[in-house]
Amino acid sequence: MITDGPCKQSAEKVHAIIDAAQKRFGRFGLEKTSMREIAHDLSMSKGSLYYYFPDKEHLYRTVVEKEQCLFLQMIREKVRSIDDPRDLLKEYARSRLYYFKTLLNLGQLRMEAFRGIRSFMEDIWLKFKEKEKEVLLEIFQGGLDRGVFHNIEADRTAELFLDMLRGLRESVFSKKDLLYIDEKEYDNLLEKTNAFIDIFISGICKD
Amino acid sequence: MITDGPCKQSAEKVHAIIDAAQKRFGRFGLEKTSMREIAHDLSMSKGSLYYYFPDKEHLYRTVVEKEQCLFLQMIREKVRSIDDPRDLLKEYARSRLYYFKTLLNLGQLRMEAFRGIRSFMEDIWLKFKEKEKEVLLEIFQGGLDRGVFHNIEADRTAELFLDMLRGLRESVFSKKDLLYIDEKEYDNLLEKTNAFIDIFISGICKD
Repeated sequence: MITDGPCKQSAEKVHAIIDAAQKRFGRFGLEKTSMREIAHDLSMSKGSLYYYFPDKEHLYRTVVEKEQCLFLQMIREKVRSIDDPRDLLKEYARSRLYYFKTLLNLGQLRMEAFRGIRSFMEDIWLKFKEKEKEVLLEIFQGGLDRGVFHNIEADRTAELFLDMLRGLRESVFSKKDLLYIDEKEYDNLLEKTNAFIDIFISGICKD
Repeated sequence: MITDGPCKQSAEKVHAIIDAAQKRFGRFGLEKTSMREIAHDLSMSKGSLYYYFPDKEHLYRTVVEKEQCLFLQMIREKVRSIDDPRDLLKEYARSRLYYFKTLLNLGQLRMEAFRGIRSFMEDIWLKFKEKEKEVLLEIFQGGLDRGVFHNIEADRTAELFLDMLRGLRESVFSKKDLLYIDEKEYDNLLEKTNAFIDIFISGICKD
């Protein structure tokens, strides 16, 4: 049992900061949120907040990492609980889109600001992408092993599937300068994603 | 019969300028090509060149329009000459990718420069996209009419297909700052496009 020592208190503080930051980011975006406001929400001094996080960008990065972790945890649970690989792919595509919206609206970044933090965020994005691919590989391999999918190579198909989903998501931005997605755009994307997934699944399944 | 009047001479001059510009752009890109160099290639004074085109960007735009026109003309000929709608979709995807490479390497733009000319180019890109969609609509509708494709709505599927292809193309740029594609990247993209098209066609076809 963990005692109520300074370590636990510190971890609790960090969790509280992450939660408060996530709420602010989710509502106003990274750019329009200040460390002062987050500290204020926690009835904490700005100095104390800076003790835990050197700047807003590190705090944002931690929030993103937490969201990535939650998404992967959730999707791995689905892989265990959903039996049919077709349903799993559908679930994956929809959950991934929902996660995209959450994460995007956490930043609400202008393209310029996005480019500014890109190199700072790149390693966690790459790590996430690799883990995504692992999960998809498992789904495609499972479908092949059970004879539901056919004529594909699991590894390449996982990559292709990721590319296709990302391509669809990014189609929203061709005319936008703000990385934000509203409900109407989300519904539109969801409809396209569903249409894609139906054709894709039909294309790799035996009837 | 058109006489050898000043109009024809002028049109010939414009064609010669477009050809010379295209060669320069194709080799060095928009940014690293100057009006002086194009004039030099044509043994023409810079002043004469500016008589026909107010600046390099207008000349670039005209070269792009010419390429768009050639692509659409070529693909419409294929629609007339290729019988099987599956072969047509394959041909479309491959030709579109090849055209993408040609056009991209004509600009060889840095992302920043690309954003700079975006609004200046947007209307011709949109017009091109609409014409692309018309061609694809014809292909999908043809496939439905002949009972080769099934369970799709031609209009939405044409849009989805365009989105998917664009998504694949743009996957090359996630880590690049220069809009240029080399042979290795092209081969990689072609492989992915072929894999996608096989699954897509299988997904919308009756067996």
